[in-house]
Amino acid sequence: MTMKHRLIPIVVLALAGAMATPAMAQFAKAKDAQEYREAAMTLMGSHFGRMLPVVKGQIPYDKEKIKENVAILNVLATLPWAGFAPGSEGGKAKDDVWLDPDGFKQAQDKLHANLKKLTAAADAGDFDAFRVAFGDVAKSCKSCHDSYRKKK
Amino acid sequence: MTMKHRLIPIVVLALAGAMATPAMAQFAKAKDAQEYREAAMTLMGSHFGRMLPVVKGQIPYDKEKIKENVAILNVLATLPWAGFAPGSEGGKAKDDVWLDPDGFKQAQDKLHANLKKLTAAADAGDFDAFRVAFGDVAKSCKSCHDSYRKKK
Repeated sequence: MTMKHRLIPIVVLALAGAMATPAMAQFAKAKDAQEYREAAMTLMGSHFGRMLPVVKGQIPYDKEKIKENVAILNVLATLPWAGFAPGSEGGKAKDDVWLDPDGFKQAQDKLHANLKKLTAAADAGDFDAFRVAFGDVAKSCKSCHDSYRKKK
Repeated sequence: MTMKHRLIPIVVLALAGAMATPAMAQFAKAKDAQEYREAAMTLMGSHFGRMLPVVKGQIPYDKEKIKENVAILNVLATLPWAGFAPGSEGGKAKDDVWLDPDGFKQAQDKLHANLKKLTAAADAGDFDAFRVAFGDVAKSCKSCHDSYRKKK
């Protein structure tokens, strides 16, 4: 076996690694990916939803707590997408996630753009801007769920 | 009603808020808390476990990817504990979580101390220290699960 032949599998493996989801995100089974992305969504829903009473005025707006929670939400919001890897169809996700990858990516981008507004408002401690951005994030969630999540 | 009387409920509500878990962590039902903490554990397990092939030498040590992943792990590791609120007994958790709160707290502290070592090694890009700290974190996980998680 020549050196050239021995290198091919290494190059192929390296390419396969580069095409995979970022940072060692490996899911041995489809079920692992499904559980991962659904867990990320559960946490996102919890950390987003717990701010609703603040938006409704049922809990006082606490700038530091909101900032802290939005910071966690921003980290969580980076996570689920790697879990929608090809071959992990199923769980709560509609097949449209994989049939319409561009639309799914646009929905993610919309969420991140709205989260950016939410973060700016939270950092500024601007309650009115926070309420508006909160509503926009909520619309992003609902819109994406309507299109890409199975009905309960 | 005097001003004094009107203030009392506000003070009581403020105290109740202060005693609750941090940052609006509210779970309407025990099941919400269970799902939250189990989701956090699922993500922690995934982000920790995906580094095992690196520790085993099956994937090259990539300092930036490891740092990025450990940073996510550190955020995730702050989350589950609020989900073990009083009244949320059940799910995968043994009753010992609530019967032995000091022991459970010590197990959390042990994890965080080991994660601190892992983070220092990751930040320094010190693979040998990383391997050792990875093993110590793994022992923290297992020890806590042995004591406080129901057998599968």
